[in-house]
Amino acid sequence: MPDNNLVQRLLDGDKRALARVISKIEREDPETTEIVAGIYQKTGDAMTIGFTGPPGVGKSSIIAKLVKLYRSEDKRVGIVSVDPSSPFSKGAILGDRIRLSDHFLDPGVFIRSMGSRGHLGGLAGGARRAALAMEAAGMDVVLYETVGVGQGEVEVASAADTVVLALQPGAGDSVQALKAGVMEIADVFCINKSDHPRSKAAASEVRSILEIGYELDPHPWFPPIVMTRGDTGEGVEELKETIEKHRAHLKQSGQFEKRRRSALRDLVVTWAADRLQREMRHRLGSEDTELMERVYSRELDPISASERIFKAVGDAATRDTDFG
Amino acid sequence: MPDNNLVQRLLDGDKRALARVISKIEREDPETTEIVAGIYQKTGDAMTIGFTGPPGVGKSSIIAKLVKLYRSEDKRVGIVSVDPSSPFSKGAILGDRIRLSDHFLDPGVFIRSMGSRGHLGGLAGGARRAALAMEAAGMDVVLYETVGVGQGEVEVASAADTVVLALQPGAGDSVQALKAGVMEIADVFCINKSDHPRSKAAASEVRSILEIGYELDPHPWFPPIVMTRGDTGEGVEELKETIEKHRAHLKQSGQFEKRRRSALRDLVVTWAADRLQREMRHRLGSEDTELMERVYSRELDPISASERIFKAVGDAATRDTDFG
Repeated sequence: MPDNNLVQRLLDGDKRALARVISKIEREDPETTEIVAGIYQKTGDAMTIGFTGPPGVGKSSIIAKLVKLYRSEDKRVGIVSVDPSSPFSKGAILGDRIRLSDHFLDPGVFIRSMGSRGHLGGLAGGARRAALAMEAAGMDVVLYETVGVGQGEVEVASAADTVVLALQPGAGDSVQALKAGVMEIADVFCINKSDHPRSKAAASEVRSILEIGYELDPHPWFPPIVMTRGDTGEGVEELKETIEKHRAHLKQSGQFEKRRRSALRDLVVTWAADRLQREMRHRLGSEDTELMERVYSRELDPISASERIFKAVGDAATRDTDFG
Repeated sequence: MPDNNLVQRLLDGDKRALARVISKIEREDPETTEIVAGIYQKTGDAMTIGFTGPPGVGKSSIIAKLVKLYRSEDKRVGIVSVDPSSPFSKGAILGDRIRLSDHFLDPGVFIRSMGSRGHLGGLAGGARRAALAMEAAGMDVVLYETVGVGQGEVEVASAADTVVLALQPGAGDSVQALKAGVMEIADVFCINKSDHPRSKAAASEVRSILEIGYELDPHPWFPPIVMTRGDTGEGVEELKETIEKHRAHLKQSGQFEKRRRSALRDLVVTWAADRLQREMRHRLGSEDTELMERVYSRELDPISASERIFKAVGDAATRDTDFG
């Protein structure tokens, strides 16, 4: 049984209860099912924004400035920040966190850093569940911040209503983003460090790449490019307005409902897949080690082994009365 | 029933049969189980190398030169190149492919590009199955080439015996890789464009980062840093020898067996997870749309919905006589 009191305290907006709930549902604690069932009705009203882009472009500085703007409107803001799990990063790389520290003591801001636990499937699901908890705790805006331009990071950011891709002038970042297949998920582009001599060149480079894509597949929203300065906050107001324009466009075009549904579908699918992986790894570490020995010795192929364990787990799930 | 003739032709080294098999098992064709069962015994002898690193550092040029060296020893080489699925990349970005074109006509080289199909779990599994097929077709060396520094790309590369992380001087790439949690999976570092004025600085930057990690967690293999030039081939011979040294180290220390086992375990787990996701998406698109309507309307939470569909799929798998 989950601590009903804990869920109630979260719904009342208690930040410590929120932190404890996120810890539980992030690591797929057995209480997750009941906790999510208890909070889900209170979700769906927050505005969600995904922030992605290569490391070092200054995402955290922009987010810090953006949060300030939302706070001046008295909106409560939750941030799910996805950090790679690296033995090196344990305490060593604190730059991004420090930039957000302006808001650490603000009761209207809640920041949660998540490690990738070596698995992006699990990461995407965990980040989304954390965002649900933040919404239920009364956050008006939930921001996903992801570091990197890989497809996995994209998966996390794409759960949001609006995805902002931050780039910086020079360093070939726009081409990097293009190569990693990230550009097509961006609703709004943000060229940070707009005081850089090459910032205009970067913007037109991005624009021409977007135009090629647009010719191949015209759609009603052409992603605007906003020039910002994370250090001074220049352009961040415009970025905020652009995000709102995109949101209005989604609602007018009926895309909003579609996106939200797709994000929920992903949540449903990834939860089960994560659960299956967890249970399979558990089995492979105990009762099914003999099966794996046969795989190692080339006696049994890995796909057949997988099908057998899949069945066994499915069988157990069907008999299991804890769920459903 | 799979085309037994097709499997036989693959085992005989027929490249067209290999291409067809990869197409089938990559997209999880129903024949996959039987095809993999038919080829698995002929796998396990190839040397596998993962090549990762940020886009634009010249991985493909180094790989092209490395392939030349293996070919001069009459070794057959398979390359699994992972490209992001981007509507922009369809025909637009051919740089990397062109650099590999030296080997397109060589009968001892087989190159396969894979799109990410928007899902990295599926990608990692597909790439590994493709590598199995290449091994069974007689490739002595299988190279995974991944674009990007995200965790997902890491997952693909980490299936290999030896992982090479390619970086270039300047552009803060080493720090990017560090932030993305990639450095700890590298067995060998390759600083490409060694003629660049900042190449020595880049090497010492990497070395000092590695030393910090080493102090936290000392292990018997300290990743060597090799300086290369993809354009002239300088240093690629040394890179090849370093990869062989790493392989010898793995075998002496007993790590080789451990890595291979871990890669097979991942293959077993991801296959089932991919299959579950596929079946769930299929259901959500047809019979369970009503269930999803209840999720959209906030009547039923997504985790409970997921558990129900998971059970239904597991139930079907248990009744299913096609597998096992």
